[in-house]
Amino acid sequence: MATDANAPTTPRDPWDLPDVSGLVVGVLGGTGPQGRGLAHRLARAGQRVLIGSRDAERARTTAAGLGDGIEGTGNAEAARRSDVVIVAVPWEGHARTLAALAGELAGKLVVDCVNPLGFDKKGAYALKPEEGSAAEQAAALLPESRVTAAFHHLSAVLLLDPEAERIDTDVMVLGEERADVEIVQALAGRVPGMRGVFAGRLRNAHQVESLVANLISVNRRYKAHAGLRVTDV
Amino acid sequence: MATDANAPTTPRDPWDLPDVSGLVVGVLGGTGPQGRGLAHRLARAGQRVLIGSRDAERARTTAAGLGDGIEGTGNAEAARRSDVVIVAVPWEGHARTLAALAGELAGKLVVDCVNPLGFDKKGAYALKPEEGSAAEQAAALLPESRVTAAFHHLSAVLLLDPEAERIDTDVMVLGEERADVEIVQALAGRVPGMRGVFAGRLRNAHQVESLVANLISVNRRYKAHAGLRVTDV
Repeated sequence: MATDANAPTTPRDPWDLPDVSGLVVGVLGGTGPQGRGLAHRLARAGQRVLIGSRDAERARTTAAGLGDGIEGTGNAEAARRSDVVIVAVPWEGHARTLAALAGELAGKLVVDCVNPLGFDKKGAYALKPEEGSAAEQAAALLPESRVTAAFHHLSAVLLLDPEAERIDTDVMVLGEERADVEIVQALAGRVPGMRGVFAGRLRNAHQVESLVANLISVNRRYKAHAGLRVTDV
Repeated sequence: MATDANAPTTPRDPWDLPDVSGLVVGVLGGTGPQGRGLAHRLARAGQRVLIGSRDAERARTTAAGLGDGIEGTGNAEAARRSDVVIVAVPWEGHARTLAALAGELAGKLVVDCVNPLGFDKKGAYALKPEEGSAAEQAAALLPESRVTAAFHHLSAVLLLDPEAERIDTDVMVLGEERADVEIVQALAGRVPGMRGVFAGRLRNAHQVESLVANLISVNRRYKAHAGLRVTDV
């Protein structure tokens, strides 16, 4: 029986998230601190994780150091073999890396976590990509991928701290398709203490990415590894 | 005895904030929901509060409705009689209102809490002021004032909810002068549950202002009145 798409339905529970435990997660730029930290936390939570790097040998060394079954390989192979691909490359290499991998990333769920920032003697400041944000640049370069944005506000130091059992922070997840956003939310939720919260469309990614400049100021003033929690949610 | 400004000093405790209980707080645009909410919370915490509006009669009516000793008057008089002036006018009237009050606001500590947003059928999105942010526009228009930015992420509904004893959220405070920032932090800290956290210079205000677009998305998805907490601080 065909269902009427316009029939009134009960609003869906926003916390009814899919089971993502069987998905393979690739981390491009996985040898950097953010990429390593995310790979470590997801693998420690039971996810199958591949680290990608321009230098496959370096990815293998990093993966071996992290353990938990993480594999290291080249960026292209990591993209090809993964269901979900986290982009954790430096902003400077963002456009070039993604453009070169458009074929491997076709059909994949891409999670951009890159923060375009500049630094000078007064500290960090936001860079505004021509496309609006790193995530929108990814979406423009990867028209056949399902692009989302998340994992911007995590402290690599905490992610890699073996003493930290929990990462008590929320992950703002942005995207155009609810089903894709919910997969990323569920992935964040695999890490103890972490929660994925929907926080808007990609056109509102710039402020989420560049808020890291503010968190850097917080860290300096309070000697902290600041993150964010969304209250009343 | 003269003190050596270059002598090594113990780093200051960032939570050693000044006593602001004697300061008079003006709220420009104090008849709008955000302005009313802030006026109510600060007065309820014991602060002396003046509500300003283009329409002094309307300000008096609003003030009488709120109680707690709040006074209503015109924007110019509210600015003149206050030590700290919170700018809570709609973005559309921001530049015009401030330009007209530059004289009254000279020497005052100005706290901009305006969020430049646009709205269409897809929801809210960030507007980018020519000066970079509402706060930087205020600083450009008020060269003789001490301009800071804060109180962007508060839910007016919660601020005005008589049942809400506490407002459990952090207030990101931005500014160029530490002494001014600390006064605003201390003011936020007067409200039970609220904490003022230094979050950078004015050049990093845009993302803090426009993050409200994301909180609006959160509110829609989760039927919430979302705010933010900074973790590890």
